[in-house]
Order: sequence, then structure tokens, then C-alpha cells
Amino acid sequence: MQITLKDGSQMHYDGPVSVAQVAADISEGLARVALGAKVDGKVCETATVLDRDCALEILTFRDEEGKRIYRHTCSHILAQAVKSVYPTVKLAIGPAIDNGFYYDFDFKTPISAENLDKIEQEMKKIIKANYPLKRFVLPRRKAIELMRKYGEDYKIELIEDLPADAQISFYQQGDFVDLCAGPHLPCTGMIKAFKLTSLTGAYWRGNEKNKMLSRIYGTCFDKKSDLTEYLTALEEAKKRDHNKLGRELGIFMTDENIGQGLPLLMPKGAKLFQILSRWVEDEEERRGYLRTKTPYMAKSNLYKISGHWDHYKDGMFVMGDEEKDEEVFALRPMTCPFQYTIYNNGLKSYRDLPLRYGETSTLFRNESSGEMHGLIRVRQFTISEGHLICTPSQLEEEFKGCLELAQYCLKCFGLDGDVSYRFSKWDPQDTDKYINDPDKWEEAEATMRSILDHLRVPYTEAIGEAAFYGPKLDIQIKNVHGKEDTLITIQVDMFLAENFDMSYIDENGEKRRPYILHRTSMGCYERTIALLIEKFAGAFPVWMSPEQVRVLCLTDRTRAVSDEIACKLRGAGIRVEVDSRSETVGYKIRAAQLDKVPYMLIIGDKEVEEGVVSVRRRGEGDLGKMTLGDFLVKIADDIDSKRLD
Amino acid sequence: MQITLKDGSQMHYDGPVSVAQVAADISEGLARVALGAKVDGKVCETATVLDRDCALEILTFRDEEGKRIYRHTCSHILAQAVKSVYPTVKLAIGPAIDNGFYYDFDFKTPISAENLDKIEQEMKKIIKANYPLKRFVLPRRKAIELMRKYGEDYKIELIEDLPADAQISFYQQGDFVDLCAGPHLPCTGMIKAFKLTSLTGAYWRGNEKNKMLSRIYGTCFDKKSDLTEYLTALEEAKKRDHNKLGRELGIFMTDENIGQGLPLLMPKGAKLFQILSRWVEDEEERRGYLRTKTPYMAKSNLYKISGHWDHYKDGMFVMGDEEKDEEVFALRPMTCPFQYTIYNNGLKSYRDLPLRYGETSTLFRNESSGEMHGLIRVRQFTISEGHLICTPSQLEEEFKGCLELAQYCLKCFGLDGDVSYRFSKWDPQDTDKYINDPDKWEEAEATMRSILDHLRVPYTEAIGEAAFYGPKLDIQIKNVHGKEDTLITIQVDMFLAENFDMSYIDENGEKRRPYILHRTSMGCYERTIALLIEKFAGAFPVWMSPEQVRVLCLTDRTRAVSDEIACKLRGAGIRVEVDSRSETVGYKIRAAQLDKVPYMLIIGDKEVEEGVVSVRRRGEGDLGKMTLGDFLVKIADDIDSKRLD
Repeated sequence: MQITLKDGSQMHYDGPVSVAQVAADISEGLARVALGAKVDGKVCETATVLDRDCALEILTFRDEEGKRIYRHTCSHILAQAVKSVYPTVKLAIGPAIDNGFYYDFDFKTPISAENLDKIEQEMKKIIKANYPLKRFVLPRRKAIELMRKYGEDYKIELIEDLPADAQISFYQQGDFVDLCAGPHLPCTGMIKAFKLTSLTGAYWRGNEKNKMLSRIYGTCFDKKSDLTEYLTALEEAKKRDHNKLGRELGIFMTDENIGQGLPLLMPKGAKLFQILSRWVEDEEERRGYLRTKTPYMAKSNLYKISGHWDHYKDGMFVMGDEEKDEEVFALRPMTCPFQYTIYNNGLKSYRDLPLRYGETSTLFRNESSGEMHGLIRVRQFTISEGHLICTPSQLEEEFKGCLELAQYCLKCFGLDGDVSYRFSKWDPQDTDKYINDPDKWEEAEATMRSILDHLRVPYTEAIGEAAFYGPKLDIQIKNVHGKEDTLITIQVDMFLAENFDMSYIDENGEKRRPYILHRTSMGCYERTIALLIEKFAGAFPVWMSPEQVRVLCLTDRTRAVSDEIACKLRGAGIRVEVDSRSETVGYKIRAAQLDKVPYMLIIGDKEVEEGVVSVRRRGEGDLGKMTLGDFLVKIADDIDSKRLD
Repeated sequence: MQITLKDGSQMHYDGPVSVAQVAADISEGLARVALGAKVDGKVCETATVLDRDCALEILTFRDEEGKRIYRHTCSHILAQAVKSVYPTVKLAIGPAIDNGFYYDFDFKTPISAENLDKIEQEMKKIIKANYPLKRFVLPRRKAIELMRKYGEDYKIELIEDLPADAQISFYQQGDFVDLCAGPHLPCTGMIKAFKLTSLTGAYWRGNEKNKMLSRIYGTCFDKKSDLTEYLTALEEAKKRDHNKLGRELGIFMTDENIGQGLPLLMPKGAKLFQILSRWVEDEEERRGYLRTKTPYMAKSNLYKISGHWDHYKDGMFVMGDEEKDEEVFALRPMTCPFQYTIYNNGLKSYRDLPLRYGETSTLFRNESSGEMHGLIRVRQFTISEGHLICTPSQLEEEFKGCLELAQYCLKCFGLDGDVSYRFSKWDPQDTDKYINDPDKWEEAEATMRSILDHLRVPYTEAIGEAAFYGPKLDIQIKNVHGKEDTLITIQVDMFLAENFDMSYIDENGEKRRPYILHRTSMGCYERTIALLIEKFAGAFPVWMSPEQVRVLCLTDRTRAVSDEIACKLRGAGIRVEVDSRSETVGYKIRAAQLDKVPYMLIIGDKEVEEGVVSVRRRGEGDLGKMTLGDFLVKIADDIDSKRLD
């Protein structure tokens, strides 16, 4: 029997052998850290016995799949501990996730976060006991009987939903048994360092019509120092969390009467939105974009032409009922069909192309309340949306222009180092989600790949992440919690020009279909504002600060001069406020620091006398006295250079 | 019997006397032009017999009610003529309206506008025949029988819908009989000058579920010259009609797949919107407003607190069903509850007041398709909305600030001479439409009246035109067709602070209810753009022109210089395009004129040689050569002074 390792080397055995044994045969060290393996690409346990030629990859904590096995076992330890402390609890599910694991419980009496300590103590005992994890399989009837014996109603529901031919497996550690497909570590003692991090509510099966369960989150590492480092980073991330900091700084709020996923931008947030949107609109205009302003809703007719009705209806807010009402409207989830309608107004010639339409466009997505989060997961958002309509020969140049604009935006936000590029393709298996024309998809993806390669974009590929009408280049960003999201996208669309009968007359007087690029320049404003809050911990760069300068007027005697200075700064286009409250200078400085204002100008009797201003800069402290003219030069330089601190 | 005339003078008669006789007794001239009369305030005919003491006002064509009698009779003449030319036609209704009259017909085979000539010829015959109009009354059963004899199904429906005690009257002229309450002229020959102006479709009873009928519009005057003048003005209005010109100039479009009342602003319109909204936002900021950006929808919960659910639900787009769905959302028809929610975030002190919130806010009103028109009657619109929250003692000063800002906007648009002021009050009879608290209404209206009088606003009063939560000052404007609409409104609200439990802490530490002003600064963008298109016939003032300058590049040799000039102008914040097509200078000038661009800079070899630009101004023609610097001074002056031509 021949076993091929990841590095290509081979090992030979005469009979069946366990993964653990092979690991030990390679090295004692590897045997100690082996958490599982991939056999011919399939993840399995170290106890798995190999009985024929195969490719083998031993998994350790450095491998994503290794981490998942490790953390999944830790979630079982959590469940065992909870069951031991609260015998009446019912278990739901407990998977490994990015950065840790969770388990959902139905407590007879809900517990509070203070109880997590007690659970951690019990988990330590289980780890110390070093129970082996034993797998066994039962036929469906027996499996249900077992779970009924333990009173595990949720597990029974899960078993009943399994397909008829599914293998129903359980894992036992000590006297604790859990329904589970595995794989797992061989024994509980392998968990070196863990921490329960939070307790929240979660609906059974994520459906808000079901019962609200208690979810305990935790994480674990194979080294104590890594756990400590992770928890420290988590604390820092929490402090920067836009959903906390953004509210504290008065950037946004939510309200239960208005609804989840519908944040209100307060004056500081609305100002930031205005600054960013004007800046992007002007930048786009410089790059030859034409502005549109199109309605936020349309009759169902439009979405039937675009394909949204067939491929995207579940995500849309629909008003009216096609059976009963003469007109059914829906809020728009995308801007495309509206800008196409404008394109179609009047005959177009090749001389009119490329046409670049841009809109500061509000969109609506009907997502369930459970998924809403701060400014990131929302039901209504505004995006710097655009569609470029061009001839096939212009496609690459236009794509390049889109990419350059996106990269310029990222650079001005200081986010250019934090992104990665993903080439998102369709999934030929999931034809419901896409316009089903394999030849066109192949052509579109080949065209896009050739452009990406030509522009030397360093991308990874992802199947099933395309838009329903074409492949995308997604610019991905990780937030402070390490969660990855798409910030900006550029899409090649070879379908919708056909659906909308869009055309242009070419050099020979022939009617042709144009190509379309869908793209954002800086993405969605809400999401970008969230990322900027977290990136800068609320201390926005001068160029985008809603309040760039605060004049601290120290006495009533300096009030007139303070107001005059503010007026001069405003005249130069600087956003400035005056603090002339009857408070001490220390109090006012602290207030400005809490509001993260980049510059303070302190105006006391002395400054008035000398005709200067005393300047403090956020992060730098006292910069001493200077003339207002010198200060203006200084701040103008920050703004023009888009200095980031 | 004593008859008191309008001027206070009295006439005495011993027995009953007709209006016509009294008119003749006053003067032969008056008898000739008398069209009807008002007896104790009630409009009646010249044939009406006076048989007791009364106040009498003889109506002529100079009186609005006189015009209506005159035009109503002309609509009967139209119906008689149509019935004579198309005997199978069925009659619907035919009232007098502002500027004319119409009649709705159900033609067996729909006719076209070319047929109006033939109908006019027939009308002339009827006028020449000078048929007397005879009124008679029938009991319901007889009335229905008569109409059945004539096959007038619509009239039968009208009779059946009359209340049981209604007097059912008819008017006969020649062999033509029409169901009608009157009053009418004594005979058809009194019509001096008439014209049928258009043919459109109209649903029976204005309900789109009913049959579409043919509506013939016409007008008539008592002097030929007045008719001619009116028709000329109508032609001019048609040329300026924003619904025609706005489309021709590429400012907006509509699309049947998107739906009526949902205009798309095309690049020129979207740019105009951007120019106006940035200008207003900046102007508001200068006046101490704080910006908000709040969601376009909310759960029904919010509208229940605000009162919209009780008083305004029919006008809202609702998503979901309260019976079935856990969450019901509705698109917002107003911004108030959203800005109040922001106010309520954090405790407010009297030192924080007044708070002035402004938002470029998109609103939605669910109106039926039949009522939609261009940019004026729409389902979605954007408004420069704001709410000022203040102490009672600040109310007048804040109201004044709102009025000054509105008047400043009107002045910059050149519309300040075209408006009138209306004090809109609630209707105590129509308590469904309003929050029903008569004492509070009295207080609110008294407060508002005192402010208006104090600020010397010249207002008229209108009952039943208030918002459901308070009285309004409406700034009314007439469009080119003479139709009056509200452009800007300032409202005093003493109710909603209570509903939203809004408060501030006063000087003595007591919790108080603030007063609220709802207001717009320049009103709704779509409506304002429509008015501006019509006011300037598309030739917008330089300061708001989407394209302020067009550089006409005459040959390839002058291309570089033309581009450089455009670049310099853009650097100075001027909106400029370059026309470097291979066309003649005449062609390019005509194109720029058609696009109503205010300035053209012509760049030929000579200009390049001499280092100058040849300037043409819209409406002024050739201004000769000047340096680019001199031109910049000139256009900057137009912009800064907001020159209107």
C-alpha cells in the first residue's frame, strides 16, 4: 500500500494503518500535534485507518481544517460541561466557526454571562480527565430512541430531517453523548487553552419564528500565548467596533420603532456621508462620468426584463400582489435597469461610447431582522453605483479605469493595504441563481480573466460568488473582527444588454450590442463609514473629518477674535466649530479629544495680543503658536495630500 | 320689496321681479352683459325671480362665477353639437373649469383631434340659432325614463346616485336635453368666442377601474380678442411646459416599465439636482442647520406614534400585512418622525436649542396613476426638508429665519415675484383628517397668525388646508398654465412633541415640551426644477446651468488650446464642455443654442494667435474678443450675483 504525502514523498505499508501511526512513523513531533488528516482531500480523524493507496495530509493547528477539528471538539467539551452544571438543558448545535466555536442551548431558566466562569471550571475538569472521543453509528430508530432517552428534542428534529440514506453518527466522551458527523480529536486532553467569550441569543435554525436559544461563544488555541494575544486583539477590536464607537461618537443610531437594519445618520455621520459623496461624485466627474438620479422603485415589469424577478425576488421589498393589484411595485435592489433605461433614451452611436453613468444610489435589500448589524448589514444603503457601456474593444481600458478609480479611493481611505482581490465566478451546478447560458458565462469569464491577468491583478478565484448576470472582481476587506466582506466590485455583464435590447450603431452603420461594466468606486457608504470608524478608531483623517478644527475660546474677551478666526477658516472651506462655554481650557481640550477633532486652536488673551493661534494636533499635542496664515497652509497641506493620521 | 346691491344702494319693487329686469332697470349696458346673479350669496340665473328682500349681485364675465355660468353653457353647446354629429355618443359630465370647460363622451368609435373642427362648425350653428335654455324638474322615476329614452346610461347612473331628496333638474336647448343642476345663460347666442383646445382620455368618475372616455376641452370668452390672447398665451405655455421641454432638453424622462410618477433624471437633470441640493445644503449650513440622513422606510410602529398611520395611511406605500406579518414597513411620506428620533437621542437642555435639522430627503406618496404628471405630480420626490426644535420664546425668531431662507431661495430662482402667501388652517368639521384637539388648534393658529401679522406677511386664509398636525404658511406659485401649487411650506406643530415625548430641560431644571417648525427651504426639487424649466423656458441662469460654457473648437489646430481653456475654467469651478466635432461654426453655435448654454467661447486660429477668446452670450449674441481672465471675471460676476437671464 502506497501513501503519498503532501511534499510528494511516499510511504509504504503492507497492511492497514491508522493516520496516527503514519504520523508517528514520520516523526514523534508530528504525532504530538496531529489533529486529523486529509485523505484524498477528505477531512478525517487521526484514528481513521488507511487500507488502500491514498494521498495523505496530516492536519495540525496551522491548517484551517485542523483548527476546525480542534475547536469543534472544544464545543463538545462546552456542551458536556453545560449539561453537567445544568442537567435540564437541551442541546441544539455547536459548530466550529472562524476564530472559535459556539454551542446553542435551550436552558430551562436562561443563564447570564456571569455563569460562564462556572462552565469554564467544569470544562477544565473535562480536559484534565482526558476522555477519549468514541464514535458510533446507529440506525435511525435507535438514534431517535437514544436522543429521546436524553430528552434532546432538537437532536431528534435534526435526525428526522436527515436524508433516508444518511449515516447517523454519535460521539461519546465520558458519559456525554452528542449527535455529530465529526471529525474530532482523539481525546479531550489535547485542548491546551480556551476561553468562553460571550453569551447571546440566537433563534433555533436562525429562523425568527422559532424559539430564541442561548448561544455561548468561545475560542481555543494550541498555545496559551496565542490565546492571550487573540483576546487582547479582540479587546482592541471591541473598542474600535463601529457598532459601539459609531454610536458613542454620534455618527449613527438605530431605533426599534424604525426597525433593524435601518440606521439613522446623525449630524456627524450625515456630514461624513456628504463629504464622501461629494468627493466621489466630483472625482467621477473628473473621470468623465455622467450623473443620473433615478427612482428608488419600479413596477415589476422592469425587474422581469432585468431578471431580478426570477433570480432576486426574495431579496426585494415588493409592494402589492400580482394576483390582485393592477400595478405591483418593488424597491430597487440594484441600479442597473434604471441606468439602462436612460441609455435606451435616444439612439446611440459608437461615437457616444464609452458612456459612464454614475449615481449616488440608494438600494434596498429585504433581509431578515436577525442578520442586521450596525452599518454593515442593513436593509437600505447608498452606494456610489455606476454602469459603463462600451464597445467590446473598449472593455479592457474601461475596466482598467474602474480599477484605478477604486484603488484611488482605497488609497485616500488608507484601506489599500487591507484588501485582497477575488475573481467571483458562477456555479454551473446552481442554475437557479444565474442566467443559465454556459457558453456566455465561459466567454464572460475568459474575457474577465484575460483582463485581470493583463492588468496583473493578484486574485484568488471563488465559484458561486458571481452576480446572476456575470462574473465579478470583488475587492475584499477584513474588518477589525477579521470578518471578510466585499467592499468594491467590478462586474462584466454580457447578458443584460440583450434583455434590455440595448444597442449602438457601429462604424459601418450596423446595430451592435454593447458590453456593460457594473462597478462601484468606493462601495457602499454605510459599510465604508463603518470600516473607516474601525480603521481610525473614530479619529478620521483631516480631509474627511466632519469637524476639522475646534476653536477653544478661553474667555469672553477673546470671543470676537475666536469667531473671526472661525469665520476666516470657514471662508477657506474648513469645517470649524467654536467652543466658548464657560469651562476650563483642560475641560475643553478633553472634550475635543473625546470628539476626536484633528486640530484645536486655543485663543486666550495672550494669543489675541500677539495675533497668533496656539495649535494642538490630535496625536501630536501642542504644536506651539503660529499665525493663522501659517496654520491655514499647514491644514491645507493635510487636506490636499489626504494625510491619513 | 327691497333689493340691496353690491355697492350698498337699494332698489324697491312692489311685486316679484326677474334678475334680468333689475339689471335692465340699473342700465341697458348691464342687462346686455349680465350672465347670472348672486342672490343672498347663492349663484342663480338671470331668469330667477326675486320675490322678497334680498342682496343682489349681478354677475358678468369679469366675475369668476359669471365666467363659470358662461362656460358651463358652452359645454352644453359642445354636447349638443357632438350629439348631433355622432348620434350614438353617450354623455357623461361637462363642467366649467379654470380657463374653460370640458365634456366627457363615450363614443361608439373613438374620434381623433381632427374631428374637433367639424364639432366646432356644429357649435357655431347652435350659437347662431340662439336657442333659449329651458330648465325643468322631474321626479326620479320620470327622470330615469327620460334618460333611458335618450340612451344616456351615464346620466342614469348619476341620477341613481343622487340623494333621495335631491331636485332632479334638466336643461333643454333646441331638441337637446341634459341632466344639469345649472345655472345657465338664458340662450346659446350669448357665446361670443370659443375654441375647442384638446382631446384626451379620462376615466369615468376619475377611477382607473372604469371605462376610459373621451374628454374634449374647450374655452370661451365674451370677446374675440380675449380668446386670441388666451390662445397665444396657451401656445407659449405649451412651449415652456416642463413636461415637454424638460424631455426635449434631456432633463428627465419616464418609462412605462418603471411606472408613472417615477421620473428618471437624466445627466443634465441630475446635474441640476446636484447643483441645487449642494447650494441649499451649504446655505442651510451657513444658517446653523445640522444635517441628518435617515432611512426611507420604517416599521408601522413609528407611524402609529406620529399619527401618520391614522391620518395618512392611504397616501403611503405599505409593505406587508399587519394581520399576517411580524413586521410591517412603510415608505416614508414625511421626514418628521425620523428627525424627532434623532432629537430624542440623548437628553437636551435649553442651551442646545434651537436645534435646526436639515435633510435632502426623499419621500414617497402613494397616489393613483391617473394623477401623475411630469415632475409635478410624482410618487417619489426629494425635498429640502427640515425641522426646527425650539423653546416657545424662540418660535417667532425661528419662524422668521425659515421665511427669510425661503424668500432668499425664491429670489435666487427669480420666482419671488410669482408667489403668494396662504395661511392654511384646519377644518373643525373634518376631524378625521386632523388630530382632533380644538383648543390646541386654536392656540397654534393664534400663535401663527400673530407671527404672520408681526412679520407683515400678506396672506390669504384657507380652511382645511393645514397639515394633520398643525397650521401652515404655504408659499403658493402658479405655473405657466395658471395652475396654483404649494412650493414651500412652514408649519407650526404643537402636537407631535407630545406624541414622541420630546422634551428639554429648562433654566430651572424642569422638563418642558419644545415647539417644532416643519419647513422646506426651496421645496421639492422635482417641482422646483419643473417651475424653473417653465420660468426660463429651459435657459437656466448661469449660476445653476448644468453646462455654463461651451468651448467651440473650430479646427484640429486649436484643439490643444481649447482643451487647455476648458481645463482652466474647470479649475475655477466652471462647468464647461468642448465641442470639437468636425462641423461648421454655424452648426456648433446652433447646437449650443438648442442646448441653451449661456456662454460660448469660440476658438479659431485667430483667437489662438491673439491669445483671446471670442465670447457669445445667450440672448445677447457676439460680445467680441476678450482675454480668458476678463471672461472669468465676467462669468464669476454672473454667478456671484446670481444674475437671472
